[in-house]
Amino acid sequence: MNLKIKCLRERMKSLNMEGMIISNPINIRYLTNIEAEGILLITRKENIYITDSRYIEKVQNTLTIDDEIIVTDVKNISQYDYENFFVFCENVGFEEKYVTYYKYREFMHKYKINNFIESEDIIEKQRAIKDSNEIENIKKACKLTDECFKYLLTYIKKGMTEKQIAFEIEKYFKENGAEGISFPPIVASGINTSMPHAVPTNKKIESGDIITIDMGCIVNGYCSDMTRTIFVDFVQDYYKKVYDLVLKNQLQTLEEMKEGANTKQLFKMVESDFSLYKYDLIHALGHCVGMEVHEYPLIGPHKENILKENMIITNEPGIYIPGKFGVRIEDTVLITKFGCINLTKSEKNYIII
Amino acid sequence: MNLKIKCLRERMKSLNMEGMIISNPINIRYLTNIEAEGILLITRKENIYITDSRYIEKVQNTLTIDDEIIVTDVKNISQYDYENFFVFCENVGFEEKYVTYYKYREFMHKYKINNFIESEDIIEKQRAIKDSNEIENIKKACKLTDECFKYLLTYIKKGMTEKQIAFEIEKYFKENGAEGISFPPIVASGINTSMPHAVPTNKKIESGDIITIDMGCIVNGYCSDMTRTIFVDFVQDYYKKVYDLVLKNQLQTLEEMKEGANTKQLFKMVESDFSLYKYDLIHALGHCVGMEVHEYPLIGPHKENILKENMIITNEPGIYIPGKFGVRIEDTVLITKFGCINLTKSEKNYIII
Repeated sequence: MNLKIKCLRERMKSLNMEGMIISNPINIRYLTNIEAEGILLITRKENIYITDSRYIEKVQNTLTIDDEIIVTDVKNISQYDYENFFVFCENVGFEEKYVTYYKYREFMHKYKINNFIESEDIIEKQRAIKDSNEIENIKKACKLTDECFKYLLTYIKKGMTEKQIAFEIEKYFKENGAEGISFPPIVASGINTSMPHAVPTNKKIESGDIITIDMGCIVNGYCSDMTRTIFVDFVQDYYKKVYDLVLKNQLQTLEEMKEGANTKQLFKMVESDFSLYKYDLIHALGHCVGMEVHEYPLIGPHKENILKENMIITNEPGIYIPGKFGVRIEDTVLITKFGCINLTKSEKNYIII
Repeated sequence: MNLKIKCLRERMKSLNMEGMIISNPINIRYLTNIEAEGILLITRKENIYITDSRYIEKVQNTLTIDDEIIVTDVKNISQYDYENFFVFCENVGFEEKYVTYYKYREFMHKYKINNFIESEDIIEKQRAIKDSNEIENIKKACKLTDECFKYLLTYIKKGMTEKQIAFEIEKYFKENGAEGISFPPIVASGINTSMPHAVPTNKKIESGDIITIDMGCIVNGYCSDMTRTIFVDFVQDYYKKVYDLVLKNQLQTLEEMKEGANTKQLFKMVESDFSLYKYDLIHALGHCVGMEVHEYPLIGPHKENILKENMIITNEPGIYIPGKFGVRIEDTVLITKFGCINLTKSEKNYIII
């Protein structure tokens, strides 16, 4: 019995959805462990994975009988078969935020589905709540990220470029057990910190610099995400004021993160505190983390989401002063019933190298 | 004057398209060099890039006056503005193979466009023909890939794992001037070579092994792609027969690749030669390479595409015997009027390490 598919079927039932076409490879991997090109059909009675000859062998090696998934080669499926997969299904869902308009039209034509409906992130919502195995993997990724940060504090020297440090981060992760990075590391120094999504440049690290490092790795298919803002030799006074304000809000948010917390309220709390000092909160305060580094739900200004037990989500307030500098501090935390467990253990007080 | 946008506008005109919403970040980077989150509108008279406060500064640093692109913060755009961007445009195109069904509906609602039409890969088709700057970058990427292969021949030793070799490839590229890899390297040995898209495992390299290495890097935003199948200590006889057949067809295809060649015919030529020996050609014979490692057009069995001058495309026949082994040999080549220039220079006769 594949528990994740069983759970999906129950969720589908509650939405009156009798079939589903799953084509997002991350959702397929989540449900089945399959890493290949293909499509997963949840029909009334069966789970069918359609792939091609390049992947048949690999897919069969991945699945067990317990998965109860029929694997077929796309070559052996006729138009008649396509039209019959969902013949008795009233509503068939698809991933409207993954499927392109072109593919949508192709599916409509091929499967001749009467009520082809948006599945409204049904799998992404399932993925938001992590099981113990997933939590363990994210914990491992966060631990390795802390270790990488500790290493960086000894590695970074004046005269090195941002690019050089970013490369060292990737190297560290790969050489220490990660499958890869969860996103290209951000290493921004001095004025470059004013851009939240700065790409590392050839700028050299100088005395008095402020440096933002945003990085994460992938362990057993699961991501980590962490940001620290550090200082070279000394902390300039005009950095301090902003740093203190960001840190105060980051710690305050940690206190509020638990089952039942309202994401919009969390965002508004930080936004309004920033506004007292004439600063804006220009990006989300956080996002869930899992197989992807950015997952549903966000902690943003628009939608109200309720945090639930076993969500893993970032807490990352930031302030950016155009043309001057920026500060961001980010942890990855596990939501529990009565509070949160911070999976990121690195120091957050002034770090001076 | 931005020549790429000028060329796009001419192509649009010939399709009776008076406006376009461009949201694929690769197409945006191709046209503007912008690397950010945002959307590019080609309206009747203007080019408008809409982004948010996180990226405004970075985007303004990327563009020059010559680009003639107006940059705006999404915050400053009203519903009235959205409805007026394309008010006099008869047909407005969108990227139907990139835009999700969800986004499509959002665009429809927001821009109130009367004739919102599929743009039929208009930009991807433009990208298929490389300019001299793009060709230089891909040449550099191919050269670095050759150098990496040369290094690997001295690096690979019996007892190493596939994963270890794959990691060394990434490391080599990063340490020798590439921005990154164009895809996760495939290193498959022995029986694992029977899967064309094998993921490196902990299997150790042994005497008598056959090893397939498929790899590429990114230089200045452009990709390379190359595969070699090599042998450890000696070439087992049953590998030889298949290797010779693949190589013969790879060389034959190189002879035929030039402006005017029909991709379906190229595919069929190899497929029918393989079938004489009861083998199948189970994947495309090639694909264009550029900012992405897989670009339009393919050399496949279905569509007839005509090769054109300054396309850069792979030539990669392969044979895979399930549960036994596989052979693939792949070069990246530049199409010219009278033949092709092989950008991959590595040896293709038996390579024994």
